[in-house]
Amino acid sequence: MIPERGFPQIEFEQRLEKAQQLMNDSNLDVLFFCSEAEVRYFTGFLTQFWQSPTRPWFLCIPQKGNPVAVIPEIGADCMGRTWIEDIRTWSSPHPEDDGISLIQKTLEEFSGSSKTIGMPMGVESVLRMPLTDFVTLQEQMKGFHFRDATPLIRQLRMIKSEREIEKISHVCQMVSNVFESLPEWIFEEPTETDVFRRFKMECLQQGVDDVSYLVGGAGPGGYSDIISPPSGKKITPGDVLILDTGCVFDGYFCDFDRNYALEHADDAVRKAYRVVYQATEAGFEAAVVGNTTADVFQAMNQVLESNGAKGGQVGRMGHGLGMQLTEWPSNAPFDHTMMEPGMVLTLEPGMQFSGNKLMVHEENLVIREDGPEMITRRASAELPVICR
Amino acid sequence: MIPERGFPQIEFEQRLEKAQQLMNDSNLDVLFFCSEAEVRYFTGFLTQFWQSPTRPWFLCIPQKGNPVAVIPEIGADCMGRTWIEDIRTWSSPHPEDDGISLIQKTLEEFSGSSKTIGMPMGVESVLRMPLTDFVTLQEQMKGFHFRDATPLIRQLRMIKSEREIEKISHVCQMVSNVFESLPEWIFEEPTETDVFRRFKMECLQQGVDDVSYLVGGAGPGGYSDIISPPSGKKITPGDVLILDTGCVFDGYFCDFDRNYALEHADDAVRKAYRVVYQATEAGFEAAVVGNTTADVFQAMNQVLESNGAKGGQVGRMGHGLGMQLTEWPSNAPFDHTMMEPGMVLTLEPGMQFSGNKLMVHEENLVIREDGPEMITRRASAELPVICR
Repeated sequence: MIPERGFPQIEFEQRLEKAQQLMNDSNLDVLFFCSEAEVRYFTGFLTQFWQSPTRPWFLCIPQKGNPVAVIPEIGADCMGRTWIEDIRTWSSPHPEDDGISLIQKTLEEFSGSSKTIGMPMGVESVLRMPLTDFVTLQEQMKGFHFRDATPLIRQLRMIKSEREIEKISHVCQMVSNVFESLPEWIFEEPTETDVFRRFKMECLQQGVDDVSYLVGGAGPGGYSDIISPPSGKKITPGDVLILDTGCVFDGYFCDFDRNYALEHADDAVRKAYRVVYQATEAGFEAAVVGNTTADVFQAMNQVLESNGAKGGQVGRMGHGLGMQLTEWPSNAPFDHTMMEPGMVLTLEPGMQFSGNKLMVHEENLVIREDGPEMITRRASAELPVICR
Repeated sequence: MIPERGFPQIEFEQRLEKAQQLMNDSNLDVLFFCSEAEVRYFTGFLTQFWQSPTRPWFLCIPQKGNPVAVIPEIGADCMGRTWIEDIRTWSSPHPEDDGISLIQKTLEEFSGSSKTIGMPMGVESVLRMPLTDFVTLQEQMKGFHFRDATPLIRQLRMIKSEREIEKISHVCQMVSNVFESLPEWIFEEPTETDVFRRFKMECLQQGVDDVSYLVGGAGPGGYSDIISPPSGKKITPGDVLILDTGCVFDGYFCDFDRNYALEHADDAVRKAYRVVYQATEAGFEAAVVGNTTADVFQAMNQVLESNGAKGGQVGRMGHGLGMQLTEWPSNAPFDHTMMEPGMVLTLEPGMQFSGNKLMVHEENLVIREDGPEMITRRASAELPVICR
């Protein structure tokens, strides 16, 4: 069953209601957003047009009432098909005043007596507007307080609705199909570049909207880099190949990987695979309500360390997942986020072996009241060796 | 001929030399970057890993000497394969100090007596790091001056090398092939969603690395929105379809569109097509050294207005093109950028007709000493009507 695209209005009303409760708790009069994920979260505004850095896009969430979009005129038609009714536009680009006076007026309209504006400023946030324009806005709004609302928006987006989970699960299943079919076609593709291209086409054929993220590579007995585009290198017997992909369905991501050996594999890489597989199992068992993301990290790390693994270079072993390839929280020693039902996480343990070789696994799961639910189809327990 | 991937070191040395000349002219001691395009421009660091918002990435360009990368450890291997030798890493994510003390130390090391740091803060720039971290950096570096270097980096990136032009031209040619083949397969695809998917697969088959951007839609007698993802709507005789795509080869974009009518077309849309085609011709003729981007805009706009066209909602009629889907400058009344050889531009005139219907054309060209060179294969002069 292909999930319905978009969301019913009730989904956005619920997000808004929760946001306004948290705003009330934090004494924020208005929330101010200029980033794709947040604008889409509250409006449903879905477009690849964000790839053009030319125009800023703004959204205000007042303490009472519905969201107000302050956007370039070119987006009015597309935003007009969302549930948003108050859409204020200007002709953009307009370097001398690219929406700044309009967003100022709107923020002032909704700032109450405490004149307090919340916006994401913390970890994992970016300022998707020119810094000089933001400084100008602050200067023109003396007496108003711009405060960090990262914890608020993080808390909201971290817990997914069943409708969101359905979309993420759907893309996980489609990509699981592709990973499972890879042994049937890989020998038709001579180079890494060809394998990547074929993988993308197979994902599209399965029904994903976009293969937004595909990294990995192959090397004899193992790989040493997991963030690169494909090299032109020929795929060779003895290579170990990893593909790590973030495919998208209706604006929601999967993020998982699979490892394969070609024709034969040595004991070192087979063992590394088993260790990281076991670490993933341990992480899965620890991903229960009552534990923290640090607990999940420690569960995985303990398996790795007790097998003599050196730490990886990744700094964490998985993360939140949803509207972005990676989201808050992190499975990391510093992150003590409590597991809550509806959180979607990746488990991503990794280790070094035989010098600088890497072995990384990744699965996606949903936290449920009665335990975690894996939404990727679990990798095989032993390193798959693909033979012609 | 498929262009070679990457660049020889001389390409980066030339970019650096020009940057350092401009830094000297502007009295900047060091340039500070945290955005994908700028980091890649000076280093060749190409990865989709930027899609994860978790980690910041930094680059310093000193007034003398080679660039210094200050990056998360996970990127060390990938950055190590570029020409950059001074790579400083920290274990990220690390919320309490995510590279801030390391970038501070590096900036201080290269700030000369005037302690002046340039960074992009102006139009079309974003701050791809947490705002609170940037504020902390500024506070910890009292006495240092952070200045807007948008004009500097814009001037550099705006003029493409022949190696860059070769990559952009290559992707334009591949996508031209796909647009020209569309009439052969479109009736195999029942809905807009299917057409989009097939188009992406055809582009990958041609050899593009990614179809990063594909928007458009179809409507009876014309379309009214050019930034949306596909609807599930059935393609129907009488529809006018636009597809506008930014495909990527080795990190360089094309950005152009094509219009098609299905089975039949009325006079209004045929006429709108002819007018916008003529506007593109006029823009092409005006895209010569000595003219400005405003002149190119006026040339196109004059054709539209003399045919009674109402202005579009786009705010400009084309833009720079290269490492990003859209780059500086804009073909707009406010933009008086002089045409220079090596600039790659889109021409993108558009008009409204029959109420709220839109007609938009787009082509890509290179400015040459002796006149513009079109690098897309020109759209047909009359609206193509595709029949079964």
